[in-house]
Amino acid sequence: MKEAEKLILILKEKRATISTAESCTGGLIAKLITDIPGSSEVFTGSVVAYSNDIKHRILNVPEHILNTYGAVSHETVEAMAGNIRNIFKTDIAVAVSGIAGPGGGTAEKKAGTVCFGFAFPNATNTLTVRFNGSREEVRADSAVFAINYLLSEIPRAFF
Amino acid sequence: MKEAEKLILILKEKRATISTAESCTGGLIAKLITDIPGSSEVFTGSVVAYSNDIKHRILNVPEHILNTYGAVSHETVEAMAGNIRNIFKTDIAVAVSGIAGPGGGTAEKKAGTVCFGFAFPNATNTLTVRFNGSREEVRADSAVFAINYLLSEIPRAFF
Repeated sequence: MKEAEKLILILKEKRATISTAESCTGGLIAKLITDIPGSSEVFTGSVVAYSNDIKHRILNVPEHILNTYGAVSHETVEAMAGNIRNIFKTDIAVAVSGIAGPGGGTAEKKAGTVCFGFAFPNATNTLTVRFNGSREEVRADSAVFAINYLLSEIPRAFF
Repeated sequence: MKEAEKLILILKEKRATISTAESCTGGLIAKLITDIPGSSEVFTGSVVAYSNDIKHRILNVPEHILNTYGAVSHETVEAMAGNIRNIFKTDIAVAVSGIAGPGGGTAEKKAGTVCFGFAFPNATNTLTVRFNGSREEVRADSAVFAINYLLSEIPRAFF
């Protein structure tokens, strides 16, 4: 069984809904979820916020956060996750913002650096992961990481 | 060269930007565009509007359109395309809403029926296509159809 299929099953079991706010994964997580028939029961939708303007205007990430910490930061994905959860009115939300590469890296934030935000009813967790590999691998690994994290955390967040 | 890569090239050449509003493709078009390095120059983002609530609240599709014509209709994708173009402030926008299957079909709108809206600066075109095949094939064929349509229409819309 695919990881996304397991995610749909556990969400149905917990009667929980999910939305995503994606930058570097560019809709890949939404694509993997909606690959699964019946996903509409638990998935309402996604915002692919590829530009900072969309992160600010649609996902309400404060400009001072984008300017101070950058788009690839714990602070930005925390805001993205919390806000998409509120806007889309879901129980859980996932936000991803990273540098898929090959360009865009800096000394501090190399290509492959990806920040994740996971908003649950009672807490929002953020993580930064540094992936190795091509642009395609970084994006695919990021999507799988997000889904696996949800599979491990949802049983703790929803009793 | 991948079709999405050709799309990025022609958009760069015409200095035009694009956004997508996706229902049944669930982020697949955004994913294919953002597979390409440098896509951020022309792609600002996407709304995956999987539920009617998101189509209405985020994409401003009037409730009377959803209620009268349904989510899979020329009227709905016309509104989705025009509105995402305005909200995301892009030159071009693509909207897709269909029945990927295997469930969800009706006598009138069988599984595989997909409506497309393409908003350009001077016109919005809508099409309905009936695809054959599995859920995965309908989704993949829909994304490729949308990109190929853009490749043929952009030269006419942007001189």
